[in-house]
Amino acid sequence: MAFRANLKVCFGDIDNAGIVYYPRFLHYFHVALEEFFNTELRIDYAEIIHKHRLGFPTVHLESDFLSPLCFGDRIEVEIKVLEIGQTSIKWGYMVYKTGEDNKLVVKGHNVTVCLKMDTFTKTDIPDWLRHSFETYQLKCEKDLKVTP
Amino acid sequence: MAFRANLKVCFGDIDNAGIVYYPRFLHYFHVALEEFFNTELRIDYAEIIHKHRLGFPTVHLESDFLSPLCFGDRIEVEIKVLEIGQTSIKWGYMVYKTGEDNKLVVKGHNVTVCLKMDTFTKTDIPDWLRHSFETYQLKCEKDLKVTP
Amino acid sequence: MAFRANLKVCFGDIDNAGIVYYPRFLHYFHVALEEFFNTELRIDYAEIIHKHRLGFPTVHLESDFLSPLCFGDRIEVEIKVLEIGQTSIKWGYMVYKTGEDNKLVVKGHNVTVCLKMDTFTKTDIPDWLRHSFETYQLKCEKDLKVTP
Amino acid sequence: MAFRANLKVCFGDIDNAGIVYYPRFLHYFHVALEEFFNTELRIDYAEIIHKHRLGFPTVHLESDFLSPLCFGDRIEVEIKVLEIGQTSIKWGYMVYKTGEDNKLVVKGHNVTVCLKMDTFTKTDIPDWLRHSFETYQLKCEKDLKVTP
Repeated sequence: MAFRANLKVCFGDIDNAGIVYYPRFLHYFHVALEEFFNTELRIDYAEIIHKHRLGFPTVHLESDFLSPLCFGDRIEVEIKVLEIGQTSIKWGYMVYKTGEDNKLVVKGHNVTVCLKMDTFTKTDIPDWLRHSFETYQLKCEKDLKVTP
Repeated sequence: MAFRANLKVCFGDIDNAGIVYYPRFLHYFHVALEEFFNTELRIDYAEIIHKHRLGFPTVHLESDFLSPLCFGDRIEVEIKVLEIGQTSIKWGYMVYKTGEDNKLVVKGHNVTVCLKMDTFTKTDIPDWLRHSFETYQLKCEKDLKVTP
Repeated sequence: MAFRANLKVCFGDIDNAGIVYYPRFLHYFHVALEEFFNTELRIDYAEIIHKHRLGFPTVHLESDFLSPLCFGDRIEVEIKVLEIGQTSIKWGYMVYKTGEDNKLVVKGHNVTVCLKMDTFTKTDIPDWLRHSFETYQLKCEKDLKVTP
Repeated sequence: MAFRANLKVCFGDIDNAGIVYYPRFLHYFHVALEEFFNTELRIDYAEIIHKHRLGFPTVHLESDFLSPLCFGDRIEVEIKVLEIGQTSIKWGYMVYKTGEDNKLVVKGHNVTVCLKMDTFTKTDIPDWLRHSFETYQLKCEKDLKVTP
């Protein structure tokens, strides 16, 4: 199954309209991605930056906000690896509101590029990382085929 | 000329990669929009919510991040009204780094819908607001024609 | 035992000095408090606001930051009820870095007042809430006495 | 006169109680301090970190929140240099709500220590910086004496 991070809408995530301030959703995407690296891939995201000196800035983002969220709502952010390029990754995000019907509330994707932190220049995704992404991608595809 | 909000990258906008945390760009979009209402349209954004009981949640967002920003960078966020629908507005954002070459660093657009705050249901954009948006749109178009 | 919320330092919590941006610690305090209400007291913090129309703004805050935190650090935020007044509560926070020595990294306290959300005027802490706070306070004190 | 930074309460600064989320006030303190360095002292705060490799983490903080703020409120954050130590500075913050009576809404102070960014060890405040702080302190004191 695809990885899902369990998050909760905090008091401070709310804006003056009483719903989640929409930039916070992108923060949710990122927090879920950090957890995905640590829990699913068993790769310490902090180590990639500090030890391997690689970063993954977002260069493109698209998102649909289908339903507003309120303080106290619990959500699950599903992460998919949509495409693996030479230097870039396309990530998919589906945010479900935890509860009776697990309604899809936000969906989106972004493209991140692999950057050498010391020079801020693009670089190929290292093989050990590419392998991890591919393994996860295969795992998700297999699930899809099994589902009748 | 199109409205531009002058902002500055704060110490706390920076992430662990030493550049602006990308959700903060969407915050910049919003802050610029708030200023656009107050300064360009002379409409108090807070009053729209509290007095007129209308909100403008984002339902769709697309953005390209062309160049990273660092602490202390000054930026100008240009606001355009791209499309005016029955209940929705499509806004355009261009972020330029203030300086010698005023490089475009981020571009994006989002769609906001007009919502009754008390019921969270879609409603037609009121005429006085529509008129303001159209006037601004015309002003920007006229500039375009004048530019040789 | 006193309640502890388990949190993790996010990528976006870091500032330009490479450590947790200090206002984020106050956010950690608040997130821990929200969890304390839900998990320890079994009271839905969102319901207090939306159903009972009560809020708890902070009127005083003191904090010592003993040691910086970095991206990926795991922390435990311990919550204590230090004093229960007619209309106010004094809360204690101890932040420990999860790991070998569970070092105390931040300690602080704040005073919140009980406010009617509709009029923004002070009001007595309702008995059902006061009872919950007192029960928790007693539980923590009993632990203290047991510890040799 | 003491330096004052003009800020505005953003849509996203508001919490679920409809007032400024209190950790945001500490963010206001910091933003005002950044502006103080740039505008009043004519020292680029970013350069202190990146060129001089010095940081100023907060080790102690106290604050009183006298009155809540809402979206759209304009504030002035006054900065004072309260004490200059060997390695530490005590800063004073007074937040006034811009308007008819310029009411004091928040007051606080924090202590920051001068740190070598490369080793995260305390170091003496360099003379050129100390001189700047002292000059500003004298300027504020002189104002006080002049005021009848």
